[in-house]
Amino acid sequence: MGAKGVKQETEEQQDFVKEVTKMSDDFDRWYTDVVRKAELADWSGVRGMMVVRPYGWAMWEAIMRAFDDMIKESGHENWAFPLLIPREYLMKEAEHIEGFAPEVAWVTRAGGSMEELEEPLAVRPTSETIIGPLIKRYIQSHRDLPKLTNQWNSVVRWEMRSRLFLRSREFWWQEGHTFHASADEAMQEADLILGYYRSIAEDWLAVPVLTGRKSPAETFPGAVHTLTVEGLMRDGLALQMGTSHYFGQNFARAYDISFSNRENARELCYSTSWGISTRLVGALVMAHGDDSGLIMPPKIAPIQVVIVPIFRDDESRTKVERFIDTWSPNLRAAGIRHRVDWRDERPGDKYAHWELKGVPIRLNVGGRDADAGQVEMVDRLARQKVGVPISGIGKRLAHELDAFQKKLFDRALNYQSDNTYQLETLDQVVAHFRERGGFVWTQWCGEGEEEARIKTDAGGVTIRTIDEETKVSGRCFVCGRPAKSRVALAKAY
Amino acid sequence: MGAKGVKQETEEQQDFVKEVTKMSDDFDRWYTDVVRKAELADWSGVRGMMVVRPYGWAMWEAIMRAFDDMIKESGHENWAFPLLIPREYLMKEAEHIEGFAPEVAWVTRAGGSMEELEEPLAVRPTSETIIGPLIKRYIQSHRDLPKLTNQWNSVVRWEMRSRLFLRSREFWWQEGHTFHASADEAMQEADLILGYYRSIAEDWLAVPVLTGRKSPAETFPGAVHTLTVEGLMRDGLALQMGTSHYFGQNFARAYDISFSNRENARELCYSTSWGISTRLVGALVMAHGDDSGLIMPPKIAPIQVVIVPIFRDDESRTKVERFIDTWSPNLRAAGIRHRVDWRDERPGDKYAHWELKGVPIRLNVGGRDADAGQVEMVDRLARQKVGVPISGIGKRLAHELDAFQKKLFDRALNYQSDNTYQLETLDQVVAHFRERGGFVWTQWCGEGEEEARIKTDAGGVTIRTIDEETKVSGRCFVCGRPAKSRVALAKAY
Repeated sequence: MGAKGVKQETEEQQDFVKEVTKMSDDFDRWYTDVVRKAELADWSGVRGMMVVRPYGWAMWEAIMRAFDDMIKESGHENWAFPLLIPREYLMKEAEHIEGFAPEVAWVTRAGGSMEELEEPLAVRPTSETIIGPLIKRYIQSHRDLPKLTNQWNSVVRWEMRSRLFLRSREFWWQEGHTFHASADEAMQEADLILGYYRSIAEDWLAVPVLTGRKSPAETFPGAVHTLTVEGLMRDGLALQMGTSHYFGQNFARAYDISFSNRENARELCYSTSWGISTRLVGALVMAHGDDSGLIMPPKIAPIQVVIVPIFRDDESRTKVERFIDTWSPNLRAAGIRHRVDWRDERPGDKYAHWELKGVPIRLNVGGRDADAGQVEMVDRLARQKVGVPISGIGKRLAHELDAFQKKLFDRALNYQSDNTYQLETLDQVVAHFRERGGFVWTQWCGEGEEEARIKTDAGGVTIRTIDEETKVSGRCFVCGRPAKSRVALAKAY
Repeated sequence: MGAKGVKQETEEQQDFVKEVTKMSDDFDRWYTDVVRKAELADWSGVRGMMVVRPYGWAMWEAIMRAFDDMIKESGHENWAFPLLIPREYLMKEAEHIEGFAPEVAWVTRAGGSMEELEEPLAVRPTSETIIGPLIKRYIQSHRDLPKLTNQWNSVVRWEMRSRLFLRSREFWWQEGHTFHASADEAMQEADLILGYYRSIAEDWLAVPVLTGRKSPAETFPGAVHTLTVEGLMRDGLALQMGTSHYFGQNFARAYDISFSNRENARELCYSTSWGISTRLVGALVMAHGDDSGLIMPPKIAPIQVVIVPIFRDDESRTKVERFIDTWSPNLRAAGIRHRVDWRDERPGDKYAHWELKGVPIRLNVGGRDADAGQVEMVDRLARQKVGVPISGIGKRLAHELDAFQKKLFDRALNYQSDNTYQLETLDQVVAHFRERGGFVWTQWCGEGEEEARIKTDAGGVTIRTIDEETKVSGRCFVCGRPAKSRVALAKAY
């Protein structure tokens, strides 16, 4: 799941961003410029670790709030499990540790004289291996199930490449871990969460996604199957936006998590885990941005409406200020996150600043507007000026923001449709990805050898997801034998 | 600031808690029993680190939400700074590192072959030393100030003693770090936050507190002064519930955080830091509990009202269930966090269970209540049964919860008054603390030698806070020289 074909940014790009590179000139550079100049995040000076700035963190807070509400409504509970995991715990599930060992940071010393610990402690790369041994204390009988746990935290993975929000040595996420009395129930749980992730992507971030099962090569270490939500970025690359794993009894076996079932016999639990991370902030940038910078879906936007006062002198400033004061409380009452930009800058510079930051709606307000009892509204997508009377402005803006959310989704959906293809042979696939990106639907026999060939022959293209609903009758695009399933291919972050 | 005079709990006390020890028999044991049996937290098996369970975490979530709203309203912004701090950064402020070095856990190895890092990285014990070097990038001129940062995270301190919520190797908190253009403004910031902390303690947790400045011996390493919020627990010991530090230019000097002032000259910033932590959950337990367990202030209570259905057979169960269904939606509409307890247990066991968990109001609902159109209300403080008609029950319960919050505060305030003394000499102080706890007000010359003698002679008693508002004319209780200030003494956690 590497960042194949993606140019590596260097953390030394720490100088001040004067101009945002044009997206069409260099997408990777554009991305980093936007993330930094719009004040979402920076590299921290600690190699591979980022500092998330308030504007970026507020986006993550909106995502956290939305998802936390969803899972609490369906009975999930937040816990806090330890940051540090004894090596012995980590080593119990063979596949899992094989997947994570290369990325673990180890605490080996502590205290004033930096004494060596008896056993190294891993800074959690994910918490399955500490939650397993802990949760079993609280599970005796089927009446104690399901246990639907979640936690919000940061994890550390010693990545060698780095890219703001997409790949860094520390990232912030939620990790859900659930334990059930039956395989069916656990699989339904993994499905339920996949639905939530789709909703976060589509209804909140306004990013249309493909959802489905991962191929074996892309399945989470230790999982029976992994479900995924895949979005398409504006450079034609796919981005995995969230995954939900069904473990069967694998983890329960490794950590001896069992319960007495209705027949009073001991049985191993069935478990799931699932996560979305600050990577979604990067997804939002790459799915919606343009040469002027970010475009924020209103539901996530830290600032939904910015008001730019326009005046020549103190007298007209006072006039405009009084005018704004008469109606801006209505915005607050309507629950609209807004700000009046009184900074000592020229209006044109302010426009560019808030466009870069992707604020959905801007209101320009001058003396003539005050006289006319209206404001000039400009939205970040259409960029046309519309006069809007201040009577009923709270309701009107709430309506405009809803419409903006929908338009942004439709724009991304059109982009996805325009960049989704249907191909039949490996030659076609290789030729396609030599020229362009996007999703390519094709048919596959289900074998690992064929999956490996795609990656090699088509320069890092992978199966992003398997469509399990559509029946197939054709032939595998690699080997020509009868196909088992329809799959979406893409180059991915 | 140690846990002097407090019996050490062992983490091996991991067996099932059958009966909660009586508070009067053994307060420390009572505390641990309640925390564990009420399902707030447990030791994790990783030495010194706890696992916070959903009921305990929901209490912390309520505190987080309340405080986060306060600081955002006054323009503070949440950031995410890195978890790991290079040793070089940590070493720059001499007093600070002296204070924290004995407690630091170090990441020294990473990756598949556990290679040694070039420079060890500290798992943050607090973030001054990483925020300093980072924030200076964003501060050029006085127009960039103030910078009002906060973050919610967990920190690691390699403590040798441990006590659930009060002292553990990992705890969860918010750490605020602010940077200002003048000393006055920074001191005002520290005062503002102290006021918020008082409000969290008194208005939310219902714990009355003393507030004021710390003596030099109790001041945060590197700070010019430390402000504190001190509550009194039901064993007569004080607990520091939050601190707000004014650094002057100390940290700005160590990390070269400067700005160009209005005269266009470079000047070092003035900074503050401040934090409250999951320790507040422990404070709530110890300030309000009784022999039956927890008593929750409604504003923090994860469950404010529990409904216990009472029935003999399926028929009466159906009747009670239908009755509850007619009015329980009104509780939701009134914003009351409630639960109906349908578990397969006897009513008496349910009563004890919810009393242990400190739920403020319990409604017993049987067939006869259904006939009469009423419920039997029992509150966790008065424990008297009152018949309440279901008409208007949402409003009535909201009112009862408000009253409960106030009664709980008054009860704690009475306890504090009953356990606050005025003494004049060291002999009196020593004699007092041999017999009992509480706060002792006295007068002090302000000298460090005298402060040290209190601790030695009175078995760990410390100056909890200095009253800076009252003028004093008497003599120092230790040396008999003219006193400079009125101080509150106590044994503390």
